[in-house]
Amino acid sequence: MGILVLVTGGTFDKEYDELTGKLFFKKTHIHEMLRLGRCRLQVAVRAAMMVDSLEMTDADRETILANCRKAPESQIVVTHGTDTMIETAKVLAAGTREKTIVLTGAMVPYAFGSSDGLFNLGSALSFVQVLPAGVYIAMNGRCFRWNRVRKNASLGVFESLPP
Amino acid sequence: MGILVLVTGGTFDKEYDELTGKLFFKKTHIHEMLRLGRCRLQVAVRAAMMVDSLEMTDADRETILANCRKAPESQIVVTHGTDTMIETAKVLAAGTREKTIVLTGAMVPYAFGSSDGLFNLGSALSFVQVLPAGVYIAMNGRCFRWNRVRKNASLGVFESLPP
Amino acid sequence: MGILVLVTGGTFDKEYDELTGKLFFKKTHIHEMLRLGRCRLQVAVRAAMMVDSLEMTDADRETILANCRKAPESQIVVTHGTDTMIETAKVLAAGTREKTIVLTGAMVPYAFGSSDGLFNLGSALSFVQVLPAGVYIAMNGRCFRWNRVRKNASLGVFESLPP
Amino acid sequence: MGILVLVTGGTFDKEYDELTGKLFFKKTHIHEMLRLGRCRLQVAVRAAMMVDSLEMTDADRETILANCRKAPESQIVVTHGTDTMIETAKVLAAGTREKTIVLTGAMVPYAFGSSDGLFNLGSALSFVQVLPAGVYIAMNGRCFRWNRVRKNASLGVFESLPP
Repeated sequence: MGILVLVTGGTFDKEYDELTGKLFFKKTHIHEMLRLGRCRLQVAVRAAMMVDSLEMTDADRETILANCRKAPESQIVVTHGTDTMIETAKVLAAGTREKTIVLTGAMVPYAFGSSDGLFNLGSALSFVQVLPAGVYIAMNGRCFRWNRVRKNASLGVFESLPP
Repeated sequence: MGILVLVTGGTFDKEYDELTGKLFFKKTHIHEMLRLGRCRLQVAVRAAMMVDSLEMTDADRETILANCRKAPESQIVVTHGTDTMIETAKVLAAGTREKTIVLTGAMVPYAFGSSDGLFNLGSALSFVQVLPAGVYIAMNGRCFRWNRVRKNASLGVFESLPP
Repeated sequence: MGILVLVTGGTFDKEYDELTGKLFFKKTHIHEMLRLGRCRLQVAVRAAMMVDSLEMTDADRETILANCRKAPESQIVVTHGTDTMIETAKVLAAGTREKTIVLTGAMVPYAFGSSDGLFNLGSALSFVQVLPAGVYIAMNGRCFRWNRVRKNASLGVFESLPP
Repeated sequence: MGILVLVTGGTFDKEYDELTGKLFFKKTHIHEMLRLGRCRLQVAVRAAMMVDSLEMTDADRETILANCRKAPESQIVVTHGTDTMIETAKVLAAGTREKTIVLTGAMVPYAFGSSDGLFNLGSALSFVQVLPAGVYIAMNGRCFRWNRVRKNASLGVFESLPP
């Protein structure tokens, strides 16, 4: 059946507009990243939206959920801005069952030199193949259940919730 | 307890010597790659050797095995040249139990622009956390049991053995 | 005597702040770029300021001019944001004589993958060695007298003023 | 009339063959480098050959000379391996007049991360526009007359001949 990579935007896919000096979205880099990783998984890539996760609305989250539900794949990687990744994970956890969904993102745009994106994509695609149904966050080489994690904004890392 | 990354060389760590125009080994890039991946796993890095896997001897494989056996960690990622990765996996499978060992490598040196190394490292570090004890090869986003895989040298990819 | 590289900021030296998702200045990349270019010129690097050229004030321009005047070097490369590079060139032309001053910049930050910065730096350092005293803009492989050039903002390139 | 970039191979254009682990030539990277440098010069690119300069023959040098002589352009940049760049320069100096020819190269292939190629190309394209007729070597940010330079092989840099 293969894996669905559902693209929603986030830092992952931001680019530098050399005419305006601003960051913007053009198109997803996922295909290029899969090529660079010499990925041989059966992967379908679908861009649901291209937004900064700080600007993601409830309607956007419903769209992401609908995409996950209707997908034939039961293993789904969602690329997402890190700021509200956990909020979206919560919506997905409430609305799906029997699917393994792994959200991942990047702290630095892939198009820039020093991105963690390729590392995170390799990580998320691996976790999604072996973890049981549920919704997870894969960042920093780690994988958390959606309700056991928080983003430490001052360090820029994801960490376990204290018990 | 954390994860051991056991470095043995391979394409992963090759560099370009600008005085001779040859490829050579200087030191491992694993620390830099973990930093780039913003990795927050508890990882110990140990360089057992720095060799081209085509030149790896039986004695080298015994050294790698000894390092795996004596390591306190039960989750081990071995970075290795792709040409003889499966041979080493066989030695490790014969000599270890109750450890999860994932071998990975790269088709292009990390120091060059277009390497799959960071993707593979993210993948291997993820598989090693969740798979049961055994010896595996993680390449191309996939993970194979050591005795269910072959390298397709003409394509440069790893693939399942036909049943 | 050597060459002075006078740093003022600009796109050249912008970086991505992974905690805020904004572009900012940390420190100049000129030393790293000279190392990458295996530059063997006698070069002194001085950071006069680190500002976006859209925010550069008249006082800033006077500071740049003062730095050029007091420098013992008679060959000076000024790294500068492209938006107001020509305004600064005009101030330098009015206030200096007997020095060759070449302003250059970049359309994409050096720290990002696809920057023109290294090309432009190689170009500016070359022109400054051979051109007679005067103030010039070196961009896009070309070199213009300061009063014979305009920035075409919609194309993101510098071009000759029509006669 | 514009500038001719005459490609002969050299480290500049070497690539890593991920199937064999060897360095090889595929096609020139000059077009990509000119694009990266946002170069707006009128440049024609012609690949005369793609060889390692250690393997360049007298016949190859005659071919390069013939290409320079028959070119309508009077400003020519020759990309060349550094090991025998000066030998080729000597042949060009003996066989041309009234043309400005600048040879340049790289210590590290452009396709690898840490290449000096883009810096050198920016430099050579600048020197060729302003220097009088003659044959020159542009490396390390410097420009030497062909008969006033030697390659210091142990440092990997070009330096002035002692007087």
